[in-house]
This record gives sequence, C-alpha cells and structure tokens, in this order.
Amino acid sequence: MYKSSVVICSGGMDSVTLAYEEARRGKIQLLSFDYGQRHKKELECARMCAEDLNVPWEVVDLTSLGRLLHGSSLSDRRVDVPDGHYSAQSMKLTIVPNRNSIMLNCAVGVAIGTGAEVVYTAVHSGDRAIYPDCREEFVRALNQLIRVATETSVRVEAPFVNVTKADIASIGNRLGVDWTRTWSCYKGGEIHCGRCGTCTERQEAFHLAGVEDPTPYEDAEFWKTAEANA
Amino acid sequence: MYKSSVVICSGGMDSVTLAYEEARRGKIQLLSFDYGQRHKKELECARMCAEDLNVPWEVVDLTSLGRLLHGSSLSDRRVDVPDGHYSAQSMKLTIVPNRNSIMLNCAVGVAIGTGAEVVYTAVHSGDRAIYPDCREEFVRALNQLIRVATETSVRVEAPFVNVTKADIASIGNRLGVDWTRTWSCYKGGEIHCGRCGTCTERQEAFHLAGVEDPTPYEDAEFWKTAEANA
Repeated sequence: MYKSSVVICSGGMDSVTLAYEEARRGKIQLLSFDYGQRHKKELECARMCAEDLNVPWEVVDLTSLGRLLHGSSLSDRRVDVPDGHYSAQSMKLTIVPNRNSIMLNCAVGVAIGTGAEVVYTAVHSGDRAIYPDCREEFVRALNQLIRVATETSVRVEAPFVNVTKADIASIGNRLGVDWTRTWSCYKGGEIHCGRCGTCTERQEAFHLAGVEDPTPYEDAEFWKTAEANA
Repeated sequence: MYKSSVVICSGGMDSVTLAYEEARRGKIQLLSFDYGQRHKKELECARMCAEDLNVPWEVVDLTSLGRLLHGSSLSDRRVDVPDGHYSAQSMKLTIVPNRNSIMLNCAVGVAIGTGAEVVYTAVHSGDRAIYPDCREEFVRALNQLIRVATETSVRVEAPFVNVTKADIASIGNRLGVDWTRTWSCYKGGEIHCGRCGTCTERQEAFHLAGVEDPTPYEDAEFWKTAEANA
C-alpha cells in the first residue's frame, strides 16, 4: 500500500538517514522545529535534505515556547553546553523539558491534517541512557495517547530505537547520504566543535562503522578520550 | 503543601473560572496559546484574567503550526464556522487536530522548566461528546505519557471533566468572575455572534445555572431553538 508519512528532521545524521530510507518507501514530508536552538545550522541541513530528496519541508516555529522551557542548555543561553561523551550524566543539561512529546504531538496534528498515516522519529539506542523520551516505552505510551486523543489510526514509529548510531552511519552510507550536509554540534560555531556530546557521539559512530567522516571539527581528537561516565 | 501550577487559559468562561478557583489554592501562572484563531479576543480576555488575579501570563505562539493543521474551522480560514448546538455532529468541523495533546504537552514542558507541579485544563463534561481529547481516558493516557517521557511527578488535572458548563457558571458566579471579561465565540465579530457552538453552549449554561448573562450577542434568540443533533 502506498504510504504517506511525516519525518521529523533535525538535520542531524540520524533523521537525515531516516528521511533517505523512508523516501524510498513512500511519500514523505519533512518537518523541523525551531525551539530557539543556539544555531540554525541544523535547520539549514534539514532544508538541504528536503532539497536533495525533492520532498516538502516545513518548519514549526516554537521559539516562543523555547523561551519558557527554562533550564536546558540547548534552548536556554544562560546554561553552558557541556563537553564530554553523549551518554555521560553531564548530558542531562541538554534535556529540553518534554521535547519529544511536544514535537511528536505537533507532528501528529500535521499528519492528521494532511492525511499522512505515520510520523517517523529518528531516536536511536544511544539516546535512551539520558533521554527518557527516546525509549520504546515512550513510543508505546505516545501511541496509546494518540489513539485515545484523536480516534485516528495515525501512529508514531521509531525504526532506529534499537539501532546504534554506528549502524545508522552504515545505513546512511549505503543510501548515499552526503554527511557534509548534516549537522550534529550543539554549539553555535562555524564548524563542528568536536567536543560536545553529539560531536563525540558522531565521531565515535563513524569510527565504529568504519565509515569515513568528512566533517571538519575544531577539535578532532577530544572524542577519543571522552569517557562515557565523565 | 504549597502548590505551584500552570493553568491553561483560553479566556473562555471555563478556564477563567478554573483560574479563579486555583488562584485561591496556590501559586498559579496562566498560559495561553495562539494557534491562529480567527480572532484575538480570547487572548485579550486571558490577559485580563491574569490582570484581575495578579498572576503571570504567557502566550505560546503556535501560529506557524496552526497553518499546518489543515481542516479545522478554528484555524483554517477556508472552512466556515458552523452554527448550531455545541454537541451537534457539525461541531466536528471545529476540531483542531490533536490540539489538547499539543497544548498540554507544551504546558508540561513549561511546568517542568519553572518548577510547577500541576498543569490544569478546564475541559468539561460537555466537551466529551465531540472532542476525544477532552475525556478522562485522555487525561489518564496523557499522565502515563508524562511519567514515561519526563520521569518527573508533573501531572495534568482536569477538575471540570465531569462538571457541566452550567455548574461552571454557578462556580464562577460564586467566585466573582466578571463574565464580560470572558470570551466564547468562535467567530471574529465585535460581540459574541450568539449562533456558533460555543455561543449556544454559553447561553444555555447561564440559563440552566440561573445566572444572569451580561454578554451582548448579535443573535440572542437562536440558541433556544438550536438542536443538539441538528
């Protein structure tokens, strides 16, 4: 059956890979969220992904909400972005309160409005240590809520929920993703910092997958010594 | 125990009454949503409610999302607002896809960020015929999602979920709500139209409660003959 879906795309390597995968299976539209991130590089990469796949792309502006979500270093400029391994406890500073419930419920509204059947999210197995809203249990509870709240058959799927980021690097490589058109860094520099949680995770993933990493980093060595429990 | 809460306030008689009630019990902040409604009258009433109660008020701008939620007459200007009784099937046109999940999850993020324990929503028993996201089952599923997604004890409460709008009129009257500073009408006129779903429901509620209705309506007679299943 011909499938129509909404893929939430941050412009990072996970969601861009997922968009490439789902674009081969059916009709997709990309949806990005601007909640006042420190930089707009990732939105620009999401736009390029839509361009490369020749699919529609929309941005939901949540900046006015972002200002009210105090306490996260990703949307609150009073908090510094921590360096270190992605799964370290210090990464809890990067939690945007209730982010995935907010974004996915917005996407479900868009899916219902446009007749799409599925909303895809690219959460992966490395997310679950720190982010409770990236776990299978979360996806199940969300789908239960959607059934009750909307009385539609729209559902959320997280095909990478048990897939490592290294495997995503392999999948994306096979699908021909141009990694220079993806963005991971939490900071606002011209190039990837190489030291924040997602930069260390990105470099580690390419390394473990044996995929060449074409990304320029300010510090390309730090990740090798970052400890998961620093 | 001193309680801090977020009250979602549309500026209508239900949420304004709820804000009055909760303001007597603890520290509250009001949160409103602009998803591109046809008029801003209700936001202005929410602002006045915060002013009357001397509590903080914030608006989350969801207009960019509203444009993507095709199909509802409240946010999509290509669809006409239907006249008639609030519980009639024609009112399904007024469903904004997934609205309460979106608004309540945003409010939960704000509650977590600001240290509030409870998010209050003023859904009432008359909402449940048409809106699945106004039922007890919905609130239960949402609280389950919040537990899993956030690992906090923040919860959503809907104290009017089994209360009729007529009872809300009585409660608000007792609390001293100034009804001229509340707005119900779905249309964009200078005064309440008197014919749309919420206008008929509003007039009926005051009538059943035996509370004097100070609201000027363009058509103050229509509601008496509007049929629930027209």
